[in-house]
Amino acid sequence: MLVHGQPYRTLWMTDDATVRIIDQRRLPWSFELLDLRSVADVAHAIRDMAVRGAGLIGATAAHGMALAAREAASPADLQRLALELTSTRPTAVNLAWAVNRQLAAVAEAGFDNRVAVTLAEARRIADEDAAMCEAIGSHGLGLIREIANQKPGRVVNVLTHCNAGWLAFVDHGSATAPVYAAHADGIPVHVWVDETRPRSQGARLTAWELGQQGVPHTVIPDNTGGHLMQHGLVDLVITGADRVTRGGDVANKIGTYLKALAARDNGIPFYVALPSSTFDDSLTDGLREIPIEQRGEDEVTHLEGVAADGSVQTVRIVPEGSRAANYGFDVTPARLVTGLITERGILSPGLPGRE
Amino acid sequence: MLVHGQPYRTLWMTDDATVRIIDQRRLPWSFELLDLRSVADVAHAIRDMAVRGAGLIGATAAHGMALAAREAASPADLQRLALELTSTRPTAVNLAWAVNRQLAAVAEAGFDNRVAVTLAEARRIADEDAAMCEAIGSHGLGLIREIANQKPGRVVNVLTHCNAGWLAFVDHGSATAPVYAAHADGIPVHVWVDETRPRSQGARLTAWELGQQGVPHTVIPDNTGGHLMQHGLVDLVITGADRVTRGGDVANKIGTYLKALAARDNGIPFYVALPSSTFDDSLTDGLREIPIEQRGEDEVTHLEGVAADGSVQTVRIVPEGSRAANYGFDVTPARLVTGLITERGILSPGLPGRE
Repeated sequence: MLVHGQPYRTLWMTDDATVRIIDQRRLPWSFELLDLRSVADVAHAIRDMAVRGAGLIGATAAHGMALAAREAASPADLQRLALELTSTRPTAVNLAWAVNRQLAAVAEAGFDNRVAVTLAEARRIADEDAAMCEAIGSHGLGLIREIANQKPGRVVNVLTHCNAGWLAFVDHGSATAPVYAAHADGIPVHVWVDETRPRSQGARLTAWELGQQGVPHTVIPDNTGGHLMQHGLVDLVITGADRVTRGGDVANKIGTYLKALAARDNGIPFYVALPSSTFDDSLTDGLREIPIEQRGEDEVTHLEGVAADGSVQTVRIVPEGSRAANYGFDVTPARLVTGLITERGILSPGLPGRE
Repeated sequence: MLVHGQPYRTLWMTDDATVRIIDQRRLPWSFELLDLRSVADVAHAIRDMAVRGAGLIGATAAHGMALAAREAASPADLQRLALELTSTRPTAVNLAWAVNRQLAAVAEAGFDNRVAVTLAEARRIADEDAAMCEAIGSHGLGLIREIANQKPGRVVNVLTHCNAGWLAFVDHGSATAPVYAAHADGIPVHVWVDETRPRSQGARLTAWELGQQGVPHTVIPDNTGGHLMQHGLVDLVITGADRVTRGGDVANKIGTYLKALAARDNGIPFYVALPSSTFDDSLTDGLREIPIEQRGEDEVTHLEGVAADGSVQTVRIVPEGSRAANYGFDVTPARLVTGLITERGILSPGLPGRE
């Protein structure tokens, strides 16, 4: 998608030994590219969240394995470097998946062909991720077009939570893909962007990428969506997902459940966009079985922004002595989900024939 | 209530010509008292939100009228000063009510007695406000005690949104009054404090006043309450209200509706605490009839906090070029409200015999 008018992906190789990424820690205050030239560089970029989002973490690890192939003098070496990559964020399912796919490719082609094989596989994984998101966009576009046809000449208002945009994948994004497809198609679309406290991925990342693409959008406090829905100002909710059970329970960024409740209360469709790899068919009861990560208090008590003098500052926004709690995700029960937009099509949650 | 271990009200007179207030613009970063010695001082303090909250605005205006009585050389003068006060925040119902009550008192006692009469009336209004909140606390205490009896030895978890604490009144608060009463009664109580973006009254004011009183509490992003309720971590929700219709629809700080939906979905009681003066019996349909104030974008795009060097800084937290929307309140339909805790007792919303 566009940055300063130029098309970008979230990562690519500038030569066979260099992975270039957008340093997302600096966004939206500044747009900086970062070159990763070793497995150690890649591991640090993932751990420190210079890259984040399920699809992008997987693709970055796949590229890390292409660098690992150059560094490894033996199969045991390659295994060690693979482990270094998978241990960066142990809960990210896509990370281990991408690394294992690279190890299998090397095993099949033979260790001597490791460099060429991992380079090709890294590119394939990135292309597949982008194509999958584009397919999600095509399927979701149908939903937006249907609403547009019902209110000709008027703007379709989509509400989203957190960042399931192209910055979380290689390109297009999941929740944003239908919006980008509609915008490209000339459908007048506007996005309500939930700020998404505590880490503000909506205000920082989603707003930025929509702005770069020229998609009209408005940042709102997480408290606002219910009021907008009560007053007919939201046509459709689309969020991403971190994990989805067999029955369609959706684990996603904390606060998603509240928007699903408001959508249901106001008869507004609530969709979740995700690549099929996000399904975890081993789970049946999302509320009981999906572990919810608790993160540091400082993400709640402190916030980063730009001061009047242009410097990036972190300020404390909670009184000293007050504790804070920071649950990363919540679970939206399938009963509140209208449909799941995947690269294969739109599925109804809870239907036994989903697979 | 307590500040640094000493009992305070939010305003009082240090002599017949000086109104002393807590400067709430500085909280929680610093606790500063401010002396108001003229009607102009009082008007500025209200307009600039050094004092805020329905009860406190009314009490401050009443005290402003005591200063007006000293400044006014004629009844026309007094009328002019009264108008200066009421025009500071035209939507605050309590403001006009307090000023008119002072004018009526002067009219009855005669202009020559204006200074003594307005001083007495100002004190009466402040005392009534504090007593009303204390009565709300007594009635709400029963609810908390009932829950405590059902889970002996375990903490009662109350969730609240925004600041309907003593800082919004003269003392005790509305939503916090039952909590303070329970805490004083030895019931183990813990408060989940919604941050309440965009103005963060929960994180800044509610957390501070609970901390000063020694009440255990935890600040949470506004996204978190639903997850807590799903997991049995909330026993009771108590919020304040800005306006309540005849039928029990509740206008309160934006985001209240989302918490009411989550409470309903999880079978958790949702109470609203308010002095009876907050009822507006002229309204029947809250969603259609209560006007919702839209405030400046900068309250969403910028945030104040304390930087590492201890200085208070305002930082921008939304990309340049992205717009923001700032709706001040939302309306929670009566069907989601378990009960209304008033100084007269606990009422069921929607019952025709309420009055």
